[in-house]
Amino acid sequence: MNYARGMTEPKLRGRRPGEPDTRAGVLQAALELFAERGYDRSSVREVARRSGVDPSLVLHYFGSKDGLFGAVMGLALTGRGELGLDSCPVDGLGERLVEIYLGVWESPRSAPVALAMLRSAATNEQAAAVLREIVTQRLFDPVVDRLDGDRVRLRVQLAGSQLIGLAMARYVVRISPLADQGIDELVSLVGPSVQRYLTGDLSGSEVVR
Amino acid sequence: MNYARGMTEPKLRGRRPGEPDTRAGVLQAALELFAERGYDRSSVREVARRSGVDPSLVLHYFGSKDGLFGAVMGLALTGRGELGLDSCPVDGLGERLVEIYLGVWESPRSAPVALAMLRSAATNEQAAAVLREIVTQRLFDPVVDRLDGDRVRLRVQLAGSQLIGLAMARYVVRISPLADQGIDELVSLVGPSVQRYLTGDLSGSEVVR
Repeated sequence: MNYARGMTEPKLRGRRPGEPDTRAGVLQAALELFAERGYDRSSVREVARRSGVDPSLVLHYFGSKDGLFGAVMGLALTGRGELGLDSCPVDGLGERLVEIYLGVWESPRSAPVALAMLRSAATNEQAAAVLREIVTQRLFDPVVDRLDGDRVRLRVQLAGSQLIGLAMARYVVRISPLADQGIDELVSLVGPSVQRYLTGDLSGSEVVR
Repeated sequence: MNYARGMTEPKLRGRRPGEPDTRAGVLQAALELFAERGYDRSSVREVARRSGVDPSLVLHYFGSKDGLFGAVMGLALTGRGELGLDSCPVDGLGERLVEIYLGVWESPRSAPVALAMLRSAATNEQAAAVLREIVTQRLFDPVVDRLDGDRVRLRVQLAGSQLIGLAMARYVVRISPLADQGIDELVSLVGPSVQRYLTGDLSGSEVVR
């Protein structure tokens, strides 16, 4: 799991501008700020202050608050290839997606990113737009490429809606007993629903009601 | 649809304290404020100001900001009985739940409540706790009463997770083409997944992986 790596990295904040780790330090500070405050109440200025650099350097690296947010969100979605989605049999994609997704939420490194992402998208239009773009490009498109047939993009988005809701119920609202289930259990419970969206017969949906 | 009723009601704000509609006016002001700002940045004082009453009257009616939030959230969940969940055949509960739920999100009267609920719960622990309590008592418990068999509460919560995620994807993040589907279409697409959670065979979940 590549997420674990970050846990043993040295503190990155407060380094001098121009050092190789400066960009990573800015990103880490931004991650923490977005996770704490959400998109609305985070600023480039505060990210700069926390990472000990000038705001102009933050803008140099990331262009804008949106760019910074996008880069932070990207952190949670790196390593997709390593996680085996591409080599997974199509009929196992549902369970694998749930497993990877819950792995993001359970890891101490990526959970704050995921939480910041969800909270910011829930409360801010601009953050929702950034999230939509990133999730489409980095998570949906590769799965779309694996599928054949009709309405593939809609299928992937329906699967995505189940994943978003699972995180809301388990990690944000924390309804029990759902929040108490183990990961393997949840993969078995939710995986088949995700698989139905990806490859199941949705033709009933064309029936006029 | 009882939601439509409110659209022709006269403006309730600015009435004198003690009139029968004062409580409704306070509730309406609170609804608008929570929808605009979310739980964190809403206050009893601002609700009082908007409804033209003294803050002490707001506290008299609702006890606290939590109480006010709970009452507002309750607005979106009234009329459940009228909507036919109780008389719906068990094997049609999935589609009926999706239909009722999307009706709440599509109605001009209740959509702001639903949005306030989701946004506040996403960003504030206390609001999430209030939501958890209300949704459990008013939405989950009645469905639990309709079901037999094992793990009924978990089943209902899994169904709930799909509904939450559907609203996030469609009304908050607005991914397309999911956001462009008609209601009947979505009922057919998502209903069977919700039905699987409620009454389907989840026994695969007991298999040790």
